[in-house]
Amino acid sequence: MAIPHRVDTLARRWIGALATLTGTALLGACAGTTTAPAGAGPLSIAEQGSFFVGGSDRASNTLSDVPGFAPVGTVSVDQMYVRYQVPEKSSGPPLVFVHGCCLTGKTWESTPDGRMGWDEAFLRRGHPTYVVDQAARGRSAADPSPIVAVKLGQQTPHSLPVIFSAGRESAWSIFRFGPHYPKAFDGMRYPLEAQGQLWKQMVPDLSRALPTPNPTVAALSQLSARLGLAVLVSHSQSGPYPFQVVTQDRTGVAGIVSIEPVSCPSPDSDMQPYARLPILVLWGDYTADSPFWAPRVKACADFVKAANAAGARARQVMLADEGMPGQTHMLMQDRNSLQIADWLAAWMRGHWPR
Amino acid sequence: MAIPHRVDTLARRWIGALATLTGTALLGACAGTTTAPAGAGPLSIAEQGSFFVGGSDRASNTLSDVPGFAPVGTVSVDQMYVRYQVPEKSSGPPLVFVHGCCLTGKTWESTPDGRMGWDEAFLRRGHPTYVVDQAARGRSAADPSPIVAVKLGQQTPHSLPVIFSAGRESAWSIFRFGPHYPKAFDGMRYPLEAQGQLWKQMVPDLSRALPTPNPTVAALSQLSARLGLAVLVSHSQSGPYPFQVVTQDRTGVAGIVSIEPVSCPSPDSDMQPYARLPILVLWGDYTADSPFWAPRVKACADFVKAANAAGARARQVMLADEGMPGQTHMLMQDRNSLQIADWLAAWMRGHWPR
Repeated sequence: MAIPHRVDTLARRWIGALATLTGTALLGACAGTTTAPAGAGPLSIAEQGSFFVGGSDRASNTLSDVPGFAPVGTVSVDQMYVRYQVPEKSSGPPLVFVHGCCLTGKTWESTPDGRMGWDEAFLRRGHPTYVVDQAARGRSAADPSPIVAVKLGQQTPHSLPVIFSAGRESAWSIFRFGPHYPKAFDGMRYPLEAQGQLWKQMVPDLSRALPTPNPTVAALSQLSARLGLAVLVSHSQSGPYPFQVVTQDRTGVAGIVSIEPVSCPSPDSDMQPYARLPILVLWGDYTADSPFWAPRVKACADFVKAANAAGARARQVMLADEGMPGQTHMLMQDRNSLQIADWLAAWMRGHWPR
Repeated sequence: MAIPHRVDTLARRWIGALATLTGTALLGACAGTTTAPAGAGPLSIAEQGSFFVGGSDRASNTLSDVPGFAPVGTVSVDQMYVRYQVPEKSSGPPLVFVHGCCLTGKTWESTPDGRMGWDEAFLRRGHPTYVVDQAARGRSAADPSPIVAVKLGQQTPHSLPVIFSAGRESAWSIFRFGPHYPKAFDGMRYPLEAQGQLWKQMVPDLSRALPTPNPTVAALSQLSARLGLAVLVSHSQSGPYPFQVVTQDRTGVAGIVSIEPVSCPSPDSDMQPYARLPILVLWGDYTADSPFWAPRVKACADFVKAANAAGARARQVMLADEGMPGQTHMLMQDRNSLQIADWLAAWMRGHWPR
């Protein structure tokens, strides 16, 4: 199996020295895996780290069904994991990246074929980056209590949480790799040769079992306020969240980049929260023939029109119209993901000049 | 709530400029949160990214109970998420950090009170770092099928996976913050004022529902072989994994750092796999009075003795004997976590001179 791992020169030198010492031929195993963009150079980071935002305590008597351990106690739920990096030379607004359905913050890290992810790409373009795991996903804990309660016979199976997981066969057309698994669209730019690494990114999605609005919304609001003014970058299932943040309190929100949102606000809803707000709704290719996506593109166009009538600075962009045909729903991982990042960085400079 | 977030000078300047523009007093919200160690300076990184190791395809017809979506399909399970960083000036072996029970790779990132985590600390000490999420934990997907099967009535509640979650009340004495919640030991060095951020790190642990050996073991073996020679750093519940890797194939393993392992190999087992292998078993304070830990310290001492008799280079260390009393089970997050990192880095230089 090809692991998209890049070994830098110095690590390679160290491994090489060890190989000499131990007499094993380790260099061969590492050769040819360096895929760092030519001339990218080292990354200079002022700060990095991680923390949680939001969350609340929950008392439970069904934490565990392991004999010998107390099933009673207090856990924290609904918090949101945030990993951040601040570049040494910061020259743009902080970006908060929110993944979509059945995925985690991994979405924005290295691509499946081992190229630079958007977290690093935008860091290199001057933006502090904040990559989150939605509540009850990835490193943000889900509440085990409803499941353990059923196992212990205290509740019926009906009370188990709603779980959504997408098999690759059904994800295929939603991700618009092609009309149906495993057929690909002509000119489609996802690195399918590394698709195994994408399928490994996918996790069970418990968002339907969470309160409405999703606790991620309050956490994003808290994070944005803390950062001062941040651009919220959503993808797919998380599309509604930045709009919900703004509707409740836009204090910390500098703008919204909505990548292939599962929905936009209704054009009949109150548009005042969006007045003067830069909003970009960004789409890849092949939407017109997608029964799932075509109506969503249309609905978002209607929203953009209504928002602008109320004074927003909203724009809907089809990347194919910008000279980038063949992009998929997972466009931040497409072969030319850095070209799209450049386009998006330019859009941001237009709104937040340096 | 105190978010342990550090804002660097440049980001602060940018936010300050925006504050001036918007007329809001944002600087105040950010003041006093910088906790980067004085003189640490920017971090120069040759490479960073993430990928998955291991995993296998699983066909399921109980992926989802959401109406309108196919419950049938193929998902990937048992893979291990790896996030890595390689320093610009690399001068030590790669370290693979494996978290313990009910936790994720977050263990090794920023401490609950916002100080530098061991991932960055060892990167700054010259080591490429690889922080993983165990199989079925964090960003490494769990299989939803057994839960959905029960919800859909295809299986009985008895077939639900074994889940273990620790409430803070029971975790308290296992983490050795004190004899019982919420009483603290005298001189104990965990930053309890930020304990809320620790409880938010805790996630449900499904390791008991996984095959034996845990798929994480095969993934660690694959990762180590890929890296050439890596030091496997385990914590608590993951303690057995590096030993299991070595027993199967020690090709990629340079050494083992076993931090407060839940168990060590039996001294009656085959010690040959450990011949000439540097092994450190590291313990914090207050173990002698812990009914849970005291027998484990004793058993690991017996293992170290047996391993050395077979030619290993094993050592068991109580940090209190090294001038560091008051350390807890979560010693990589204790107040003096960087002092412990310095001690550990020196131990490594002793085995792998630069």
